[in-house]
Amino acid sequence: MTHIIKGWETARSVRTRVAERVAELTAGGRCRTPGLATVLVGDDPASAVYVGAKRRAVREAGMRDVHRHLPGHAAQEDVAAVVDRFAADPEVHGILIQLPLPAHLDAPALIDRIPVAKDVDGLTTGSAGLLARGERVLRPCTPSGIIELLDAEGVGLKGARVTVVGWGELVGRPLAQLLLRRGATVTVAHEYTADLAAATRPADIVVVATGVRGLVGREHITPGATVVDVGIHRTPQGLAGDVRAAELEGVAGRITPVPGGVGPMTIAMLLANTLEAAEWEAERAAVPA
Amino acid sequence: MTHIIKGWETARSVRTRVAERVAELTAGGRCRTPGLATVLVGDDPASAVYVGAKRRAVREAGMRDVHRHLPGHAAQEDVAAVVDRFAADPEVHGILIQLPLPAHLDAPALIDRIPVAKDVDGLTTGSAGLLARGERVLRPCTPSGIIELLDAEGVGLKGARVTVVGWGELVGRPLAQLLLRRGATVTVAHEYTADLAAATRPADIVVVATGVRGLVGREHITPGATVVDVGIHRTPQGLAGDVRAAELEGVAGRITPVPGGVGPMTIAMLLANTLEAAEWEAERAAVPA
Repeated sequence: MTHIIKGWETARSVRTRVAERVAELTAGGRCRTPGLATVLVGDDPASAVYVGAKRRAVREAGMRDVHRHLPGHAAQEDVAAVVDRFAADPEVHGILIQLPLPAHLDAPALIDRIPVAKDVDGLTTGSAGLLARGERVLRPCTPSGIIELLDAEGVGLKGARVTVVGWGELVGRPLAQLLLRRGATVTVAHEYTADLAAATRPADIVVVATGVRGLVGREHITPGATVVDVGIHRTPQGLAGDVRAAELEGVAGRITPVPGGVGPMTIAMLLANTLEAAEWEAERAAVPA
Repeated sequence: MTHIIKGWETARSVRTRVAERVAELTAGGRCRTPGLATVLVGDDPASAVYVGAKRRAVREAGMRDVHRHLPGHAAQEDVAAVVDRFAADPEVHGILIQLPLPAHLDAPALIDRIPVAKDVDGLTTGSAGLLARGERVLRPCTPSGIIELLDAEGVGLKGARVTVVGWGELVGRPLAQLLLRRGATVTVAHEYTADLAAATRPADIVVVATGVRGLVGREHITPGATVVDVGIHRTPQGLAGDVRAAELEGVAGRITPVPGGVGPMTIAMLLANTLEAAEWEAERAAVPA
């Protein structure tokens, strides 16, 4: 029997923990209400749905929901000015620019205007550098959600052999760093890997984040392994992942379903990061200069 | 027959190439002479030898050798002031702080005062972040020297299975990024890897950078593999590496010796980085603002 990892449940418990801590922190005005500022540019319907879900989660956790929606033709300096204003605003502890941005904007330059201390998506160059150097830093939400999920399931990481399939900026790269920090032996495979099965079969844990539907199946997985599927694809039969999950029933020891596996963790970790940013700010404020 | 990779030869050819380019660039005063500033704090004899070798190589390449030697009791702000002065000096294109620094100094904070554009050692948080994000950046000297050496030997990286043993900040971490950028399938093993041989035997290329003398031997290497030994240890019998090289004679396809393998490449890449920094500065100066 393959155990199905219930991402919704772990996500809900993270969100509850965050909400309780927010209530505790702000009780009696001991600390500012943690605030997340979201920036949406243009009218992409999917982006609007994602931002809406994030803002709702922020309010449900008792945090401050700050939002700016700019028109799709907004100039680089207009978006930059919004980010800079949030960067300077003491009521804002986290800043999230919803991606993708319209093509005429320089997204990396805008992201890098977010101060590392407010970089709740963990996407700035500064955050990537601190992560690579093993320092304390807000971690990108999807990779840290995967770690949280594995921890919640009691999957040991220290000394585990983990193969990460996909070396993208949002998931594969930072996840490999986080796994190494936890003591896993990590293999990174990608489009140039000639024999993918040779790279995944020795692994105790296989994480697939390629954006290629159904890339990984029976031939890639050793019986009993834990499989984490980060892909999400719309199909006529509903949502599907990067893993051919049906083939792994009875083979994988544990698997994250699509939907309801990794997905819900991303918003939960965004809330956790916003809380962490607010707590760090409170710590810094408490230390006499 | 195991082929011995002659690091001295490749290092010499890199240094010759750099010297020729420096002569070409500065002929007729078209460009400032590239300058490297070295900062040495205290009187550690090994550090003095290393800095001396770097300064000599800089002069031999026709570059400007700038140096500051501070006493071992120098305060954080004194070293910081020296770094800041070099950061602002247009004659200085690269800044190198010789490590280790005396224990009372905050080394990461001093390193992070070096502007990314002058970070010829590739050790700042900014450089680590740009490297992790796959952007153009000066790369740490030892890892980029290893890549240069493999290229010079005609060892293909795209699609190759490479195992990096050791996840240190100076070699293992940045090297894994550089290898992934070149399309290798990369496994990182380290002290928590329970079965090291299982991680190294499938590899076409094994790089060992652990600081543990003689860690890797016959049982870890598949016949024909390329072995890169980054370790260097003083023994009564002379210098030795992290690899038990004698056991691999006739087994490894190619191996870097200790000494004379990776070591000489580090200074060569420092010169190449200083030249690159000077060329980037000239490029920027040529673009109308």
